[in-house]
Amino acid sequence: MQNILFYQEAFVSYLEKFVSKREPETLYNPIHYILELGGKRLRPVLTLMTAEIFNSDYNKALDAALSIEVFHNFSLVHDDIMDDAPLRRGKETVHEKWNINTGILSGDAMLILAYQLFENYNPETFQALAKLFSKTALEVCEGQQYDVDFETRDDVTIAEYLKMIEYKTAVLVGAAMQMGAIVAEANNEDQNTIYHFGKNLGIAFQLQDDYLDAFGDPKTFGKQVGGDIIENKKTYLYLKALEFSSEEDQIQLQHLFSINPKDASDKIEATKEIFITSGSAEATKQAIAMYTNKAFSVLESLHISEENKAALIQFGNQLMNRTV
Amino acid sequence: MQNILFYQEAFVSYLEKFVSKREPETLYNPIHYILELGGKRLRPVLTLMTAEIFNSDYNKALDAALSIEVFHNFSLVHDDIMDDAPLRRGKETVHEKWNINTGILSGDAMLILAYQLFENYNPETFQALAKLFSKTALEVCEGQQYDVDFETRDDVTIAEYLKMIEYKTAVLVGAAMQMGAIVAEANNEDQNTIYHFGKNLGIAFQLQDDYLDAFGDPKTFGKQVGGDIIENKKTYLYLKALEFSSEEDQIQLQHLFSINPKDASDKIEATKEIFITSGSAEATKQAIAMYTNKAFSVLESLHISEENKAALIQFGNQLMNRTV
Repeated sequence: MQNILFYQEAFVSYLEKFVSKREPETLYNPIHYILELGGKRLRPVLTLMTAEIFNSDYNKALDAALSIEVFHNFSLVHDDIMDDAPLRRGKETVHEKWNINTGILSGDAMLILAYQLFENYNPETFQALAKLFSKTALEVCEGQQYDVDFETRDDVTIAEYLKMIEYKTAVLVGAAMQMGAIVAEANNEDQNTIYHFGKNLGIAFQLQDDYLDAFGDPKTFGKQVGGDIIENKKTYLYLKALEFSSEEDQIQLQHLFSINPKDASDKIEATKEIFITSGSAEATKQAIAMYTNKAFSVLESLHISEENKAALIQFGNQLMNRTV
Repeated sequence: MQNILFYQEAFVSYLEKFVSKREPETLYNPIHYILELGGKRLRPVLTLMTAEIFNSDYNKALDAALSIEVFHNFSLVHDDIMDDAPLRRGKETVHEKWNINTGILSGDAMLILAYQLFENYNPETFQALAKLFSKTALEVCEGQQYDVDFETRDDVTIAEYLKMIEYKTAVLVGAAMQMGAIVAEANNEDQNTIYHFGKNLGIAFQLQDDYLDAFGDPKTFGKQVGGDIIENKKTYLYLKALEFSSEEDQIQLQHLFSINPKDASDKIEATKEIFITSGSAEATKQAIAMYTNKAFSVLESLHISEENKAALIQFGNQLMNRTV
C-alpha cells in the first residue's frame, strides 16, 4: 500500500484526463469547473487504497474512484442550489457562476456520467458496482431530504439525526471502500466488513465536522468557525445540548437558534458555552470516539494482512485527529 | 403481438405496484404523483411491444419499460423547473405543487430508480440495458441543453434543430424499442435496426408535434393551438419559414417572434399565414413523411415475421395520422 498523497496524485492526474473538451460546452464546462475545484479527494482515495488492501492494483479501481468523485460533486452542485450557497471551496458555486438551470442539468449529466464510468468493467463487476452505487445514491438523496425536512421541525431526535448523517454522508464513504473491494474481487463477507468500516468512520467524520465547526481552531479550520450556529443548524451538538440542559438553558438555546443577529459573535459564544456546560461538547467527542472504535472493531475479521489493518487504523486516527 | 391498449393496461397495472408507500414521503410522494399523472405511456408500450416482436414475453420487459417511463418523467420534472411551467397534463407541476428543491431532489431519485429497475436482469442484460440507458440519458440532457441554448440564439440552423430534437426526444424512443430487443435477446444487428426505426419515428413524431401545435384542430389537439408561436419557439416550422421567405416576410416573422401581445390571436394568425405562404407548412409535412419512410425502410432487413413488420408499419402510420 502507498501513502495517501500518492493515491491523491494518481487520482487527480486520472481526473484531468477525464476532463476534456466536450459539446455542448454549456453543459460540460460547469462539470469540469466543479470537478477541478479541488478538495481532499477523500472518497476516491479510499477506493484506490481499498483495492490495494485487497491485493489488487489501484489502477484497476480508477474508474470506480472517479465515479464516486463525480457522484459526490453532483450532490454538491444540487445541494448548493437547494441551500442557495454562494461559495464552494472558496469559489463561486455552479448555479452562481452560471444559473440554476445549468446547475440542475449539469448535475443530472454528472449522475449519468458516474454510471458510465463503470462500463469498462466486466458484466458481473459492472452489476455489483452499479447496484451498490444506486442503493447508496438513493440513500444520499433520502439523507438530503431528511436534512431539508429537519430545518422546519423542532422535534428531531438524536436517532433521526444520526440516520440523516449516515445517509447523507457516511454510506458514500462505506460504498467508496466497498467499490475498491469489489474491483479487487474480495469475498462478500470482506466487502461487507469494509463497507461498515467506512460507514462508521463516515459517521465519526461527520460528527467531527459538527464539533470542529463550533470548536475548531480558526487558524487551521479553513471554514468560518460557528457557521452552523449562525445558520441555526440542528447538529449533534445542538440536539445533545437540548437533551442534557436544564429547562432554563433549553429555553435560552432555543431562543439563540431562533435569532439571526448581524454580528453573530455573542450568539456563537453563548451557544458554545451551553454546548460545554451541558456536557454536549464532551458527549460529541465521546460519540466520535465510539463510532471510530466501532469502525476499528470490525477490522479484526478482515482477510487482509496485519500491515494493511494497521494502515487502516492509522488512516482512521489521522482522520479523527484532523483540525481541518 | 397484442394491441396497444393491452400493453398500456399491462404497463399501468405494473406501474401501480411500483408506486408504493416509501419514506421519506417528502421525497417519494412527488415521484408517485408525477408517475400517476397519466399520459400515453408511448415509450414503455414500445418496449413491451418490441420484446414480443422478437418472440419474447412482454412480462420480461416490464422492468425495462418502467425504467424508460421513470426516466421520461424525471426529465419532465426537471425540464418543467427549467421552463418554469405551471402545468403538466393539466395538473400542477411538481415544483409548483411542492417547491423547486423538491422537484430537483425527487427528480434525482427518479434517475437513480430508473437504473435500479434493471437489477433483476442477468449481468450481461443488465450491462447492455444500463449502457444504452446512460448513452441515451446523456443525449437527452445534451438535447435539453441545446434547446435552452437556442432560446438566446438567432442563428440556429435546421441541422442544429434536427439534432436537438433527435437528442431531446427521438433517441429515447429508439432506446425504448432497443431495450425490448435486448430483453428478447435479439442479435446486435436487429437491435441496431429497431433503434433506428424508433429514432426516426421519434423525429417524425416531434416534427408532427411542431406541426400540430400550429395547425392542429383545437377540438382534438388537447393543448392550446399556437402555444409555440405565443412562446416564440424556434420550431421547424419557424426555421423553414425563415429559410423560404422573402426578405420582407423574414423581417415580419422575426418581428412577430419578438413580441408578446396580451391577446395573441392576431400574432398566431399572421404567423400561420407566413408558415403557409412560405411553403414551410408543406415542407414540414414532407419532412414528417420523409422520417416516417426512413423508419419504415429499415424494417425490411429485420429478422422478424412479416406479420410483425406489418404491425410496426400500422403503429407508425397511426402515430403519424394522430390529431392529438
